Amino acid sequence: MSTLHFGDGNLQYDGQGRLRHLLSIEGLRERDLLQILDTTESFLSIAQRTVKKTPTLRGRTLVNLFFENSTRTRSTFELAAKRLSADVLNISASQSSTTKGESLLDTVDNLMAMQVDGFIVRHPEAGAAHLLARHLGERALVVNAGDGQHAHPTQALLDVFTIRRLAGPVEQQVVCILGDVLHSRVARALIHALSILGCPEIRVLGPRTLVPPEFASLGVQVHHDPRAALPGASIVYALRLQRERMESHRLPSLDEFHRRFGLTPERLALAAPGALVLHPGPINRGVEIASTVVDGPQSVVLAQVEHGLAVRMAVLSLLAGVPGHED
Amino acid sequence: MSTLHFGDGNLQYDGQGRLRHLLSIEGLRERDLLQILDTTESFLSIAQRTVKKTPTLRGRTLVNLFFENSTRTRSTFELAAKRLSADVLNISASQSSTTKGESLLDTVDNLMAMQVDGFIVRHPEAGAAHLLARHLGERALVVNAGDGQHAHPTQALLDVFTIRRLAGPVEQQVVCILGDVLHSRVARALIHALSILGCPEIRVLGPRTLVPPEFASLGVQVHHDPRAALPGASIVYALRLQRERMESHRLPSLDEFHRRFGLTPERLALAAPGALVLHPGPINRGVEIASTVVDGPQSVVLAQVEHGLAVRMAVLSLLAGVPGHED
Amino acid sequence: MSTLHFGDGNLQYDGQGRLRHLLSIEGLRERDLLQILDTTESFLSIAQRTVKKTPTLRGRTLVNLFFENSTRTRSTFELAAKRLSADVLNISASQSSTTKGESLLDTVDNLMAMQVDGFIVRHPEAGAAHLLARHLGERALVVNAGDGQHAHPTQALLDVFTIRRLAGPVEQQVVCILGDVLHSRVARALIHALSILGCPEIRVLGPRTLVPPEFASLGVQVHHDPRAALPGASIVYALRLQRERMESHRLPSLDEFHRRFGLTPERLALAAPGALVLHPGPINRGVEIASTVVDGPQSVVLAQVEHGLAVRMAVLSLLAGVPGHED
Repeated sequence: MSTLHFGDGNLQYDGQGRLRHLLSIEGLRERDLLQILDTTESFLSIAQRTVKKTPTLRGRTLVNLFFENSTRTRSTFELAAKRLSADVLNISASQSSTTKGESLLDTVDNLMAMQVDGFIVRHPEAGAAHLLARHLGERALVVNAGDGQHAHPTQALLDVFTIRRLAGPVEQQVVCILGDVLHSRVARALIHALSILGCPEIRVLGPRTLVPPEFASLGVQVHHDPRAALPGASIVYALRLQRERMESHRLPSLDEFHRRFGLTPERLALAAPGALVLHPGPINRGVEIASTVVDGPQSVVLAQVEHGLAVRMAVLSLLAGVPGHED
Repeated sequence: MSTLHFGDGNLQYDGQGRLRHLLSIEGLRERDLLQILDTTESFLSIAQRTVKKTPTLRGRTLVNLFFENSTRTRSTFELAAKRLSADVLNISASQSSTTKGESLLDTVDNLMAMQVDGFIVRHPEAGAAHLLARHLGERALVVNAGDGQHAHPTQALLDVFTIRRLAGPVEQQVVCILGDVLHSRVARALIHALSILGCPEIRVLGPRTLVPPEFASLGVQVHHDPRAALPGASIVYALRLQRERMESHRLPSLDEFHRRFGLTPERLALAAPGALVLHPGPINRGVEIASTVVDGPQSVVLAQVEHGLAVRMAVLSLLAGVPGHED
Repeated sequence: MSTLHFGDGNLQYDGQGRLRHLLSIEGLRERDLLQILDTTESFLSIAQRTVKKTPTLRGRTLVNLFFENSTRTRSTFELAAKRLSADVLNISASQSSTTKGESLLDTVDNLMAMQVDGFIVRHPEAGAAHLLARHLGERALVVNAGDGQHAHPTQALLDVFTIRRLAGPVEQQVVCILGDVLHSRVARALIHALSILGCPEIRVLGPRTLVPPEFASLGVQVHHDPRAALPGASIVYALRLQRERMESHRLPSLDEFHRRFGLTPERLALAAPGALVLHPGPINRGVEIASTVVDGPQSVVLAQVEHGLAVRMAVLSLLAGVPGHED
């Protein structure tokens, strides 16, 4: 899975080794990851202007194909596409012909017959975006906006972009990821992206039920005590705690979790001075992170959102074969 | 509340006394109200052209943030924004992250991180738009598209614009407002706007349960008999009767209301010759107003809708700091 | 109903005999049908370009007024309008003021007051689009996107366009329509369009309950045996089998239908060599048609979808008074 080769086994690349889909951080070459991050810089400045548009994808059509609700993700991709001047078609599952028994691939084939140029897909089943990419090949681009346990590679891209931009070279960071690492594809994709970029030390922190010892095989340090995990960390990344986990008895209670692991000002003080606090959102204030930390000076959660828009503009333009933005 | 001062107490103005949000008619200076009405004139002509667009807000992003369904209001603002060439993001509450427990302000902060330029907000709770404006300050514009009892100041603006344009100077009108005045913010905002513009005589008409004597303190004449309220009125404004009121026993029945107060051709004949009939919509035909009056020659309800679009274009462009439309 | 005259009785034409609405194939003049098909050719090439847009309807506003869910139809019209550079307003019934008791015509009048240029209407009741066209006259264009039993004339237009483009002149085709002809307006509209264009032989095939002998009065051959109906057919058109029909006991079972009438490779081999297979979608694979036939070399179902987009662009531009696309 986490190979750096491409070819038949790596759906993200076409026969010439060009990035054609963004499905997962796994399998992404370092130089493509770096190109996305560099292109993101060029798009970041656009959002600061009064006229926040470029003609990059004028006349192209992108489909937001969402089989799960996610206003935040849908809105970011919609805005990214619109600011690139693309036409956007929003299709949500509850309205779609799939309710008439049509399959995902039939729906996609119909949209392809209308000459759409790409799909941004969110689907509850793991592998849905890969299925689409395999089916479409070079005919249209596919961006995975979350499949299965709500993973989407653009999240990891915006995370490492934020770290690189606001904390400095990834090679110099000590990163501590806090929370339900076991069920978080955000965490796994982030660990992959950090590894590709040469992060020297990655720690994961949480209760044994959510951070099992097997994680050490990913090349990370496993911690169950904040006092051991936080010292020296230049980046503290708090994960969203899925309330559903409570029902599976992996957690005693939200209060208990907050008391033992929640990122409070006191715990943050254990980390390196000026350590940055990241969170993928939406935030459970008072659970995985205290409100005062979210709103405090070390928090860069809104910068993550801002960077997320630029990352998506970069990804869409690169996959569409337009190398970047020139003023 | 209804002060003409600005500053800390008046969220609609920035520190330099420039109109930055449109939250309520209360607190709006006469000269700003007049500027909106004058700017509306310039936008009204655009709708008559084949190409109904201006580049006024090209490259800006406006968010329709609707926590209540209102196709009519949402559509008007969406069309207004599109005709100004803005990008529009529609977000409805049922889809939004607020269902994941995220607060209104977190949602807005996330959207601000994507550099959106303004919010058109509809929310069931009174004060939601004010909360947003207080939070955002000069960072983005806020237009109140209805909070609490479905008030929105652009309704009062289009009403006085319609009166001024089709009946003449507001200073020369006698206005009779008919119906559930007690629960109508439309009525209250209209009374304020008419007062600011120097309307010499405003009458309110309805049963005692819906038009209590205390209204006299607003400077209006209180009437319970159409035969006393209508003679001499140059403007008859029928309010939508909320069927919900029936349940609170404030009304015997819709039929009874129509029989005693409904604007029939006979009652309209009591008003001044050629008196104009207005209604904010949607109309309950046969309840507060007879169908023949809605569709009759004195009705200007569709002109109100037309003017509503131009008013919203004017408000959005003025709040965005673009003073108006030049051909 | 199926007259070739125009005037009072033919709502599709204005007083000068210009096509103003597209409501049904019945009543459409041959020369207008041919003009739509010819204009479609010019729009088909646009979809092949990188920039898939023309400024044809820039500054016009079209409303997708959908009182029934139909992602496919809505998306095609939305894309068609956007590629013509029109602004599109999507209004679905569940959100609309009609739930507040406002009538269809009141909703339309309100939208007209906002100077929209046309309506694409889908409504569960037969005649809804006609009602709108009668109400609007020359003030705005109306395209029937399905009323009652899910008929929409653009389907028949894309069908005959596909036949003409991929099989050759309609005058030389033998067409066999298979399935629930009785309840299918798609079938009826197709028969009309084929007749207008001089198709010499049209056959309908299905069980007696769904293809009654009375159909012969439409000038078609009625068949109940595939071995008699298919030989010599150059076009085989499979209709979607409405599962609802099962409940009315008109069909024993889906399996039984497939066994006796379903378009299998064996049955298709009875038709003329290289006969084309069409289907209006969405497809019930394994019911009216076998999956291998849908995906086989004779199937042109995706070409139908592609042509459908170009047909809708042609219809919208012609009804808006813009004669076509010039490069």
